[in-house]
Amino acid sequence: MQREPIVSVIGPGEAVQFMESMAFDVGRGLAELGITLVCGGGSGVMEAACRGAREYGGRTIGILPGADPEEANPYVDIAIPTGLGEARNPLVVSSGQLVIAIGEGYGTLSEVAYALRLRKHVIGLGTWAIPGIDEAVSPADALEKASAALGLSI
Amino acid sequence: MQREPIVSVIGPGEAVQFMESMAFDVGRGLAELGITLVCGGGSGVMEAACRGAREYGGRTIGILPGADPEEANPYVDIAIPTGLGEARNPLVVSSGQLVIAIGEGYGTLSEVAYALRLRKHVIGLGTWAIPGIDEAVSPADALEKASAALGLSI
Amino acid sequence: MQREPIVSVIGPGEAVQFMESMAFDVGRGLAELGITLVCGGGSGVMEAACRGAREYGGRTIGILPGADPEEANPYVDIAIPTGLGEARNPLVVSSGQLVIAIGEGYGTLSEVAYALRLRKHVIGLGTWAIPGIDEAVSPADALEKASAALGLSI
Amino acid sequence: MQREPIVSVIGPGEAVQFMESMAFDVGRGLAELGITLVCGGGSGVMEAACRGAREYGGRTIGILPGADPEEANPYVDIAIPTGLGEARNPLVVSSGQLVIAIGEGYGTLSEVAYALRLRKHVIGLGTWAIPGIDEAVSPADALEKASAALGLSI
Repeated sequence: MQREPIVSVIGPGEAVQFMESMAFDVGRGLAELGITLVCGGGSGVMEAACRGAREYGGRTIGILPGADPEEANPYVDIAIPTGLGEARNPLVVSSGQLVIAIGEGYGTLSEVAYALRLRKHVIGLGTWAIPGIDEAVSPADALEKASAALGLSI
Repeated sequence: MQREPIVSVIGPGEAVQFMESMAFDVGRGLAELGITLVCGGGSGVMEAACRGAREYGGRTIGILPGADPEEANPYVDIAIPTGLGEARNPLVVSSGQLVIAIGEGYGTLSEVAYALRLRKHVIGLGTWAIPGIDEAVSPADALEKASAALGLSI
Repeated sequence: MQREPIVSVIGPGEAVQFMESMAFDVGRGLAELGITLVCGGGSGVMEAACRGAREYGGRTIGILPGADPEEANPYVDIAIPTGLGEARNPLVVSSGQLVIAIGEGYGTLSEVAYALRLRKHVIGLGTWAIPGIDEAVSPADALEKASAALGLSI
Repeated sequence: MQREPIVSVIGPGEAVQFMESMAFDVGRGLAELGITLVCGGGSGVMEAACRGAREYGGRTIGILPGADPEEANPYVDIAIPTGLGEARNPLVVSSGQLVIAIGEGYGTLSEVAYALRLRKHVIGLGTWAIPGIDEAVSPADALEKASAALGLSI
């Protein structure tokens, strides 16, 4: 059987409007491609991406640092309340077939590092300049790179 | 927004035919109630429950001990490859609104213990005799108890 | 090189005086045998065992559920603040060469289950009646069983 | 009671001779200051730092990714076999009062990110150029910075 395609979207819980706008567009694009979005389930970039996905019919998973599912942002369909704190970060990136990183923040940096260590394809949008990241210039460019990597036609 | 109802099904990766048959019936019943099933993603009771769910149109999540999504049983829709080993057990029970425990095994015992510590409602079918478990006499009885606890009409 | 012998002592954070007294005696005995004690670093049985160890010159490690080392009881020499919540329980038992379980509680039950799953020798003092536990009748008996299992002369 | 001072040393499991030499000197210096060293317990920078500490009478803790204490390098006194895989990285940095990062590698980058997120003082020796790191020019400089931060006289 085929499992559904899943992409990790990572980014900080506090983000400027411009970053959230890009995250919304990435979430929307993943939904339109029929891809499930997995993220850390929090606010900021995570919430904007989930909102974009949900408003366009997509599905969203939030892997939460805390033990309470109510901590998830309101656009998370499936909440995984880990209770692991920051140690949940590796799970966020290991759950996606590839990773789209939007914006900066030390938590995001730890996720980028884990993803690269796991030899995941990491597409970056205004994120840390770490060797190994495939930099995109716009949400559309990031989605095109993701589609190509997953073998989907956009 | 409303998150989808999720129930954890726990049980050993090696189980006798009778236990697997009960797990299949529980998975089927959850699917018919529109409830998403979350489990450890492995074989035995976990696989039988996922198969029951999938064959009746339900959705399944597997929270895996390893880091490789391919370790999930073939009836898992969404694989969360944690890489945490046995430390993923608390996540399996914290992700469901209640827990149905089928059969014995030390891994299952650890999950029952976690669930009771989290003050989750634990419905037991042929599982460890631990104070605090709500014992069911059949898959139908377990599903009825689950429906009542979740406020669903069966 | 030889690593120092380490024994895990597990038990609830709230315990009756009698259990704490047994835990103190176990901690003392481990110190007298030159064995480092590892536990969950909390109160109750954990604190009593650490106090027994420290008062008789032993060393103690606390693997904490929270992220703050100050949460450790005052008799912990080395605090490992995991931030993992209940998912730190497997670490407590995997860090010892064998496990001494004192008293009951669902957290303790999860640790007993993990230890048995890891095929660790589990010595029980007034703990859950789970098949596979080696029951001791007193702290002295538990220490004798531990010494024999570790190949030490008491 | 006073807990013993502990410093985290992080760095890759494969490192050039020069990095290992710096790690050895840092381990030696920590031992001479009476500071316990905590690391990931592996090879490369971790092993060199542990060797430096042990050869000068210091104590070493290894928080291992795997479940087997035998995976620790031979200079680890106390092995904590977590079985958590990469999710053990936050524990390595949370266990020290400050962090000394030597060399690069994605695992090291994730640890630097966690440490900065936890607002730990991170002293860098030939490591990633991430804002927030306190860069040292030599092992002696790193040890001086560490002593000053811990309020010790060198």
